[in-house]
Amino acid sequence: MTVKPLLDRVLIKMEEAEETTKSGIILAGSAKEKPQIADVVEVGPGGLVDGKEVTMYVKKGDRVITSKYSGTEVKLDGVDYTLVRQSDILAVVE
Amino acid sequence: MTVKPLLDRVLIKMEEAEETTKSGIILAGSAKEKPQIADVVEVGPGGLVDGKEVTMYVKKGDRVITSKYSGTEVKLDGVDYTLVRQSDILAVVE
Amino acid sequence: MTVKPLLDRVLIKMEEAEETTKSGIILAGSAKEKPQIADVVEVGPGGLVDGKEVTMYVKKGDRVITSKYSGTEVKLDGVDYTLVRQSDILAVVE
Amino acid sequence: MTVKPLLDRVLIKMEEAEETTKSGIILAGSAKEKPQIADVVEVGPGGLVDGKEVTMYVKKGDRVITSKYSGTEVKLDGVDYTLVRQSDILAVVE
Amino acid sequence: MTVKPLLDRVLIKMEEAEETTKSGIILAGSAKEKPQIADVVEVGPGGLVDGKEVTMYVKKGDRVITSKYSGTEVKLDGVDYTLVRQSDILAVVE
Amino acid sequence: MTVKPLLDRVLIKMEEAEETTKSGIILAGSAKEKPQIADVVEVGPGGLVDGKEVTMYVKKGDRVITSKYSGTEVKLDGVDYTLVRQSDILAVVE
Amino acid sequence: MTVKPLLDRVLIKMEEAEETTKSGIILAGSAKEKPQIADVVEVGPGGLVDGKEVTMYVKKGDRVITSKYSGTEVKLDGVDYTLVRQSDILAVVE
Repeated sequence: MTVKPLLDRVLIKMEEAEETTKSGIILAGSAKEKPQIADVVEVGPGGLVDGKEVTMYVKKGDRVITSKYSGTEVKLDGVDYTLVRQSDILAVVE
Repeated sequence: MTVKPLLDRVLIKMEEAEETTKSGIILAGSAKEKPQIADVVEVGPGGLVDGKEVTMYVKKGDRVITSKYSGTEVKLDGVDYTLVRQSDILAVVE
Repeated sequence: MTVKPLLDRVLIKMEEAEETTKSGIILAGSAKEKPQIADVVEVGPGGLVDGKEVTMYVKKGDRVITSKYSGTEVKLDGVDYTLVRQSDILAVVE
Repeated sequence: MTVKPLLDRVLIKMEEAEETTKSGIILAGSAKEKPQIADVVEVGPGGLVDGKEVTMYVKKGDRVITSKYSGTEVKLDGVDYTLVRQSDILAVVE
Repeated sequence: MTVKPLLDRVLIKMEEAEETTKSGIILAGSAKEKPQIADVVEVGPGGLVDGKEVTMYVKKGDRVITSKYSGTEVKLDGVDYTLVRQSDILAVVE
Repeated sequence: MTVKPLLDRVLIKMEEAEETTKSGIILAGSAKEKPQIADVVEVGPGGLVDGKEVTMYVKKGDRVITSKYSGTEVKLDGVDYTLVRQSDILAVVE
Repeated sequence: MTVKPLLDRVLIKMEEAEETTKSGIILAGSAKEKPQIADVVEVGPGGLVDGKEVTMYVKKGDRVITSKYSGTEVKLDGVDYTLVRQSDILAVVE
């Protein structure tokens, strides 16, 4: 299944949150901090969004920091992805 | 009955949610996850929306991912459809 | 009594909701689903709305789908009408 | 006392609500439906409102339909009036 | 103490509310209706407000109707005034 | 420590509220009315704010009236200041 | 790990809050005031944000005052940073 994000949308996959605390305790699901670093899987073409031209700065393969709670989660072939606007991406991590 | 969406409206039909969980249990209505993939049934002509020119990128027959909770549900000839703005469509699935 | 909607306003009359469920039970008022199809009774001339030029796409006699809860209900000569903006009209039904 | 509305403001006087129900019962104050038809008493000159040119379409003496709850009620010489923006006036009744 | 309102601000002084009801009863503070007519004490010079040119229509000495709850109350030399934007002034009373 | 406000920000210092009521009672902290007159300590250079050119009208040393609750309180070297946008300054007092 | 903020984003590191009150008492975590002064770690390149050109005024190494509660906290290599828009930076401290 191929996903082609429209306009300024970006398909990202959150990296797995750390399973272990600093003191070495393994965390159950809900106690894990929501991961904030994601991998860019697909990037929309940009274009006129709300009457304003948007250029895409992120590219496939980038590791990015997104604002928590932004975007729409979507399950594709059993895997969880998130579709965000590029403006919800705060920084690229290298 | 033919529906002609105005401007940037798109008539979509949500795909049926999976009736079975991974473990093979058949789910009753309310336990099913809301489907997020929809088929595009009719596409408006685009044009000046709120003073801004909108070009239509999706076309009849596309399978699309929409943001949950967006749009207006409408029952036509006993079938449930949703009318969304094109901006509520996040990606095209191929 | 003649009503002349201003600018992009449209006077519509909701079609009567189905009185009978699929199983043939006749419904009392509050159990009926709110109808979503309406007949266009009068159309404003369009013009500059909030500084943006609006062209009217619907015309007297059209059957239209409106977003639920939009518009202002008004009783004229004992009959219930609704005044909506054209942007609250989602599609024309033919 | 003369009231000169500024810019796109319109001074209206709500018409008295019907005192009698269809079945002929005379209603006390709070049971009466809020009237929705008003008489235009004074009209502002229009002009630049929020950076956008507004032309006045209603005129003194018009009977108009306003959106419920809009405007500011004001008592002048013991009589209740309402000051609304022209954009709160939905239609002219003839 | 001289107050010079900035841009489109207007310094007004609410007129005292009627102390007596129609039936002649003298009202205590909280039972009095909030007055809606005010005297214009000082007027700002207008200018670019939020990127839009604002021309001042009211002038020192005008009696005006303001929308309730708007503006900032300020006590100067023990007297209560209100600073409003000109757009909160609905009409001039003559 | 020198503070240089960015763009249209203004660093102000609220004047001490009156410690004594009209009847001569000295007030404890929480019973004092929040002061509304402030002294301008530093003024940003103005410039393009949200895409709109802002010119600075207030200057260092001005006594100004600000809208209550606006701005960000900041403690510098043990002294309380407030950083406001110039648009939160309502008037200059002379 | 290198973080490259996008557009008008700025990566800052809050300075440690004072651990000691004026009376010399050492404060536990939650009783400490949230620090408001931060060090600029990385600065985005600016550019077209929401259709408006943004020029960057802060630079790496600046000490800045930010509005409380703004921005997104992010933990990188075990250290807490905050990503803010430049417009959330109120002033530069020298």
